[in-house]
Amino acid sequence: MEFNLVKSIEILERTPSVLEHLLHNISPEWAMSNEGGDSFSPYDVVGHLIHGEKTDWMVRLELILSDKADKTFQPYDRFAQFAESKGKNLDQLLTEFKTLREKNLALLQSKKLQEKDLLKTATHPALGSVTLRQLLATWAVHDLSHIAQITRVMCKQYKEEVGPWITYLPILTR
Amino acid sequence: MEFNLVKSIEILERTPSVLEHLLHNISPEWAMSNEGGDSFSPYDVVGHLIHGEKTDWMVRLELILSDKADKTFQPYDRFAQFAESKGKNLDQLLTEFKTLREKNLALLQSKKLQEKDLLKTATHPALGSVTLRQLLATWAVHDLSHIAQITRVMCKQYKEEVGPWITYLPILTR
Repeated sequence: MEFNLVKSIEILERTPSVLEHLLHNISPEWAMSNEGGDSFSPYDVVGHLIHGEKTDWMVRLELILSDKADKTFQPYDRFAQFAESKGKNLDQLLTEFKTLREKNLALLQSKKLQEKDLLKTATHPALGSVTLRQLLATWAVHDLSHIAQITRVMCKQYKEEVGPWITYLPILTR
Repeated sequence: MEFNLVKSIEILERTPSVLEHLLHNISPEWAMSNEGGDSFSPYDVVGHLIHGEKTDWMVRLELILSDKADKTFQPYDRFAQFAESKGKNLDQLLTEFKTLREKNLALLQSKKLQEKDLLKTATHPALGSVTLRQLLATWAVHDLSHIAQITRVMCKQYKEEVGPWITYLPILTR
């Protein structure tokens, strides 16, 4: 499938409501448990997505489109949500994510991006030169991959409870 | 996390609306593409979930609770949806799944299952003896694992488009 802006926005605009229907008012055992160590719980993932809305995707898009001499992205802090989500419950985070995403998609649409804009580049601190097109494709994939992660983490809370069916559920041992 | 009927139903009752918000009216490139070979597209997964509602979960529950002499499950056809979904569009399947799931959850609630019911067993044709508790835990995990699968399959449609970011997206090479 080739990159398409409209079809990328199809994904981006759905994620807040998908997460709301998956997680709103769910028991803490499902929302707050992780895969061990410093891995993310569903609650942590929503905080991570909020941090991305604030500091990553649209900030990087603006930098790519700008006339700045140094177009190097700020590194992204993948653990910022552990501090930033403190004191907020999951439903507050879901609402915050929805609001930020709506704002960012309105801003994205207002750019009226052309094909030539999608080819513009900036420098990722670890990955080197990247295009706006790649940034937008990654934003959509990042959303989907975190829905996959949330559901995988939730699956694993019942790892012992499925008994012999574990044989048919490779997700539990991934 | 220990098995809990109410918390299992929390998952089971959400899946239809999660899938609806993820897939309703989405472009066919997202819905109909798979991971190659006879792997499932999101469309195929919804058909697979429908087949489970019709022939697997509650049918097996009824068998476990029954007084039948032979409590061996019928084998489950994991490819039935390739024939059964023919001629139906994705939105029809999403509605069909929602209706069947509502009906099955109403039936499940009507059983007023007790702890002693959860310990009742039947024979899985490949896995041997399984309990009702394990069946119900597996039903919830099966739902979540297929949401994870759908989003993974969707991610992969942009595998080429994310460029160097593929390094940070292990889901694309899984």
